[in-house]
Amino acid sequence: MTRTMATIGTKWKPIVIYTIGLKTLRFGEIFARIEIISKKVLTEQLKELVEDEIVAREEFNETPMRVEYTLTEKGIDLLKILNQLTLWNRKYNDPYRKRKPTP
Amino acid sequence: MTRTMATIGTKWKPIVIYTIGLKTLRFGEIFARIEIISKKVLTEQLKELVEDEIVAREEFNETPMRVEYTLTEKGIDLLKILNQLTLWNRKYNDPYRKRKPTP
Repeated sequence: MTRTMATIGTKWKPIVIYTIGLKTLRFGEIFARIEIISKKVLTEQLKELVEDEIVAREEFNETPMRVEYTLTEKGIDLLKILNQLTLWNRKYNDPYRKRKPTP
Repeated sequence: MTRTMATIGTKWKPIVIYTIGLKTLRFGEIFARIEIISKKVLTEQLKELVEDEIVAREEFNETPMRVEYTLTEKGIDLLKILNQLTLWNRKYNDPYRKRKPTP
């Protein structure tokens, strides 16, 4: 469990996985969609996700070099679980449903 | 997503949730089962899990006071997702399956 959570991390990786989703995106596209991430952090997170075989990186011999990122089968399986976490969160943490109703 | 992951955290909460599982346990029982956690950290983590309504805390008027912890419905739903994460991890990160086989 500790190892699983360490692989996923908390802050950025789930967001990067969500952003790529079932699409194939270039670095700049991922960067533009996440908005509040720095290029340095996104580069690091993508590198680790590629190392963990959650994201596949493909280089194309063009000038400037084109690099595309896609979720692997392992990544898509993880995306499905992250989707369930989001549903879980929506179900129980609906901001419009007050935790303790005022009497 | 960020909020979901912040609620779950990485290090201890999934372990505490797993340890309680479908059981009802006293603080000392959870503490003994996790082994490597400090009492201070376990106290904090349980407090946050109770605040987030993932764990229910019940006090019994005995001397010394008995306090029991059980997963709520929300907690059990989360436990199921954590179980899927463990299966995901086992499927893809089998330590006996080398990532890059030596030629």
